[in-house]
Amino acid sequence: MADYNDLQKKVIDLGKLTLRMTTEAGSGHPSSALSLAHIVTALMYRIMRYNPRDPWLNSDDRLVLSEGHAVPIVYAAYCDLGGVVGEPDRPKQLTSEDALTLREADSLLDGHPNPAIGFPFFDAATGSLGQGASVAAGLALAARLDGLDRRFFCLIGDGESREGQVWEAMDAIVEHKLTAVLPIFNSNGQGQSDYVSTQQSPDALQAKLTAFGFDVRVIDGHDFEQIFDALTAQPGEKPLAVVAKTVKGWGVSEMTSSNYHGKPLREDQLADALADLDAKAAELGVADVSAPASEVAQLTSPDPVPLNRRPSVSAGPFRAACDAAGMGKALEKNVLSTRRAYGAALLALGGDPRVVATDGDVKNSTFTELFAQAYGDRYFEARIAEQNMVSMALGLAAAGKIAFASSFAKFLMRAIDQIEMAAITNANVKLVGSHAGISLAADGPSQMGVADVAFFRAYAHSKRTDGAPACRVMLPSDAMSAFKLTELMANLEGLCYMRTHRPDVPIIYSEDESFTEGGYKHLHDGSDLVIVASGYMVHVARQALALMEANGLDASVIDVYALPLARPDEILQIGDDCNGQILVVEDNYRGGVADELAMAAAVSDLGVTVHSLVLETMPKSTKSPEESLRAAALSPQHIAEAAQAIFDSIA
Amino acid sequence: MADYNDLQKKVIDLGKLTLRMTTEAGSGHPSSALSLAHIVTALMYRIMRYNPRDPWLNSDDRLVLSEGHAVPIVYAAYCDLGGVVGEPDRPKQLTSEDALTLREADSLLDGHPNPAIGFPFFDAATGSLGQGASVAAGLALAARLDGLDRRFFCLIGDGESREGQVWEAMDAIVEHKLTAVLPIFNSNGQGQSDYVSTQQSPDALQAKLTAFGFDVRVIDGHDFEQIFDALTAQPGEKPLAVVAKTVKGWGVSEMTSSNYHGKPLREDQLADALADLDAKAAELGVADVSAPASEVAQLTSPDPVPLNRRPSVSAGPFRAACDAAGMGKALEKNVLSTRRAYGAALLALGGDPRVVATDGDVKNSTFTELFAQAYGDRYFEARIAEQNMVSMALGLAAAGKIAFASSFAKFLMRAIDQIEMAAITNANVKLVGSHAGISLAADGPSQMGVADVAFFRAYAHSKRTDGAPACRVMLPSDAMSAFKLTELMANLEGLCYMRTHRPDVPIIYSEDESFTEGGYKHLHDGSDLVIVASGYMVHVARQALALMEANGLDASVIDVYALPLARPDEILQIGDDCNGQILVVEDNYRGGVADELAMAAAVSDLGVTVHSLVLETMPKSTKSPEESLRAAALSPQHIAEAAQAIFDSIA
Repeated sequence: MADYNDLQKKVIDLGKLTLRMTTEAGSGHPSSALSLAHIVTALMYRIMRYNPRDPWLNSDDRLVLSEGHAVPIVYAAYCDLGGVVGEPDRPKQLTSEDALTLREADSLLDGHPNPAIGFPFFDAATGSLGQGASVAAGLALAARLDGLDRRFFCLIGDGESREGQVWEAMDAIVEHKLTAVLPIFNSNGQGQSDYVSTQQSPDALQAKLTAFGFDVRVIDGHDFEQIFDALTAQPGEKPLAVVAKTVKGWGVSEMTSSNYHGKPLREDQLADALADLDAKAAELGVADVSAPASEVAQLTSPDPVPLNRRPSVSAGPFRAACDAAGMGKALEKNVLSTRRAYGAALLALGGDPRVVATDGDVKNSTFTELFAQAYGDRYFEARIAEQNMVSMALGLAAAGKIAFASSFAKFLMRAIDQIEMAAITNANVKLVGSHAGISLAADGPSQMGVADVAFFRAYAHSKRTDGAPACRVMLPSDAMSAFKLTELMANLEGLCYMRTHRPDVPIIYSEDESFTEGGYKHLHDGSDLVIVASGYMVHVARQALALMEANGLDASVIDVYALPLARPDEILQIGDDCNGQILVVEDNYRGGVADELAMAAAVSDLGVTVHSLVLETMPKSTKSPEESLRAAALSPQHIAEAAQAIFDSIA
Repeated sequence: MADYNDLQKKVIDLGKLTLRMTTEAGSGHPSSALSLAHIVTALMYRIMRYNPRDPWLNSDDRLVLSEGHAVPIVYAAYCDLGGVVGEPDRPKQLTSEDALTLREADSLLDGHPNPAIGFPFFDAATGSLGQGASVAAGLALAARLDGLDRRFFCLIGDGESREGQVWEAMDAIVEHKLTAVLPIFNSNGQGQSDYVSTQQSPDALQAKLTAFGFDVRVIDGHDFEQIFDALTAQPGEKPLAVVAKTVKGWGVSEMTSSNYHGKPLREDQLADALADLDAKAAELGVADVSAPASEVAQLTSPDPVPLNRRPSVSAGPFRAACDAAGMGKALEKNVLSTRRAYGAALLALGGDPRVVATDGDVKNSTFTELFAQAYGDRYFEARIAEQNMVSMALGLAAAGKIAFASSFAKFLMRAIDQIEMAAITNANVKLVGSHAGISLAADGPSQMGVADVAFFRAYAHSKRTDGAPACRVMLPSDAMSAFKLTELMANLEGLCYMRTHRPDVPIIYSEDESFTEGGYKHLHDGSDLVIVASGYMVHVARQALALMEANGLDASVIDVYALPLARPDEILQIGDDCNGQILVVEDNYRGGVADELAMAAAVSDLGVTVHSLVLETMPKSTKSPEESLRAAALSPQHIAEAAQAIFDSIA
């Protein structure tokens, strides 16, 4: 039996530091942290193949802390090990003193794991629970693709494992045979407001994991012998999962005498707690071991693998891509849906090995299928599990991939919290939501993405630390713009969302048009008023224009194909030249392009009026896009009448 | 062995009608529908205790069609049975002819189940997958509370069962011992874009359900003997689940020869398919049975139970409620957080037995705990599974409860698709998201609800069929308004969302203030400009006002406590009286109150300028709300400086 005295001593020291840093911070989760003290120490000082001085190896083993609130113990270890933070060109080495800056405004030790502020030891922001195993699955898919022997240790709370996404991830890990992922369930038996349900007991977790297809080991999470045995075991055919029985607040009597969650010790409680840990050390017979950190740590560091995070990817010419996608016939008629054009673009982009894709069992609707057929090794079927899909895409992106993830826009929204965590992470994920708006018609409201524009616009106006939008939103109206915006997304670092539509529509742009971040197109030049539209509604607006022209009304038409608008004032200026009247038409709920322009108009000196026709009723099934538009008062006739009324009102 | 010849014949007839109605509609899912033909026939003609002529009994057995796309077979049966649709005061009896109106604009037979348009056989809009079992769990909780012997049959697709929420629901059903729910997994082996994963095979489902704590029966879903045996079995201690092996497109060779999903037969394919079903009938030896519908159906109808959907609920006086909640000491200091006031209000509302509550293991943070302690039989701990929590609340509401569901605002957002389905259903669910905004400070962005206002405002501007907002949004700034808005929510029929904050704040309203839908309060009357705020930012605005007054600037302050604003023009008028200058301050992302007023200003003749300071950076941890506000450029100083700059610009 190995002697773990030096590690036991380390556990005591890290435990003390954890108590001190959370008390100093005045908040945090020391009890959860202590329950992981032995496992984290074993991983970070011995088991993981990595280099704390270079967290950018891209070939090392990684820790995914799904239960993000337990992070103080990881910070304590990383600081003790002299771990490096910051950016590759501006690295900064931490010391134990830095641990005491936890949660300070200018500290990189955020309340929960957050790589985007400069803590590259982590791949994903966590803390909204249940997402880590999916991230680990994405990292493992990328590693297999790159032929890298990496392992991904994922720490999941027992209470957390009530989240359905955890089981979506378990399905994905087993189905894709991702033996590089080791899910470790921290069974300390306590949640925030109550003890953990018997549905998440160690026995229940063991039974469930076995049923899902894992080899399962149940261990004492404070016994190094058992920890090393399980965490260094080579998985066989099946992936391995570990259920670790632990004690919340290990070693501190104040925390172990009742359910103790999510609060630090007061200053006046600290001395007793530190004495508790000293007593624990004595009890374990390790109080005299005083090896310095460098000797306790026995780590091997893999050779680094370079990561090109700012790739230039080309989809080539539109028509060649459409021909390759078997869409030549559609082009002859000059009609093609935006979703098909996305499929053609993704297929063309697939020439670059960094491009990967995933989809939620609707790839034949989103047209991600074309990529899946051509590049099967880089396509990962996510099945009907959108939350796992998005977090898995985050993991793929963290490993250097340009990760596309698609579903119906409506169904992507159920992963909005995972999407928000991807925004916080600044993940290089490209989301594509198809069948958006009400042009889906017959399937009805349960399948229609009509809140998506408002949701993503909220993120679009949040700025990353580099000043770029936390999410770029693409709203293509035709196949050409969808094609070029897909290419643009692939070349933009960070989170993007593109909205595509079901129906075939005329191709209105030529190959030589260019599409840029936050851009718009002035499609038709009129003088009486301006109609602004996006996506499918651009075509409806054009039909309205024909009706208006028959009535002698001459409107400008503008296609807003991206948010946030880079230069909304230009559109206001066009409105100013058209009697100061703008009418925005949208097939989505309030919060989209009309609000974008109203926001700009509200602080503009031009005095432009921004009218809007947006979806303001709950849609239901109809048999055609035209009927749905009529029912929602968004038909060409409705638009033409609204335009006429505006014109009459100023006459 | 019983003779099922009449039911076999019914299956053939309903199968034919399903083919006709989907071909007539030009879209739909006949193959999924046919896989359920026997199970649905057994349920709707024999097993369920209900009355097709009165779907408003509130005491009957219910069918929850989680895989909503299979709905044509249910419509076919319901039309054949002369089922009633519409409203209780305007009932309409269907005929088989009505089945052919599927998906028409003025038909109540929507593409997917949708009770809100007048199809009361269903309790919930479904079609976004994975939500039905949670709804059934909510219905069963309500039935147990009401002492009603009802059963809830829930049909779930095998591919659908990849959704994590399905397993959240299974945990909830087992933990709450909801033997009244019978989950039936339709294992037809085919998804939309591919065959169903081996992770969702009948064997895998059986193993998983067993591990989750169910007694499981695996049956042939086209064998009436086995269907009746399983679906009428009395569960023992454990809940029962059924895995039904079925054939997608049962009886139609065109559909069974390959993966056939989500498309109707063409007109020219119909005759062959109908002939296939006739041949199937002959093969089963039932072609000669021609019993009329009324004889095939052998149904028992329970006595009706009245349902009061428009209750008047009172929380009583604020101070008495706070005393009862043990908050007397806080009142002495005149400070109380909005989340505590919500807890006090919910406790007070608990005097009405229709009020129920659920929470996602943060009830000691949201203060739903007060209700849980006082009314344990009406509190349902949802654990860390927000999606199941929201859909379960929908089920509770469908059974006549006033269902409150709470979590951190950030974590509620992960159920946004379930919330949208509740909006489509027009469910009487009251959502409360706590720890919203950036005043949470130390915990960092993974715990902060900062996109919630934009999300819910999108729904707030969608109108129900009765013209009311699909969601009312409440943004209380102090304990009094939080208390009264909680009471208002309980009295409003339909979906509501209230946003509460962590910190204690001064109580600024007196007991005699009233709070109404879409309202605001003119807190301070100034003349130089108007500051508009909501929630926590009202207090920040008041601090800014003090700074501004020191600089000789006299601003009006308005508290917008609800969206959609009923009379935004009144606020614009106040702005017009204050040099035409409004400054909106928000601790959330773009898409909230500033956009609400900009939208109004953009069509107003008043020419009011709407400036805004909203959260436009990704938050990180800090040690105090004040530091977070400073980091986000939303501090009192920032507001005062922005106000001064606005004033200077017009001087």
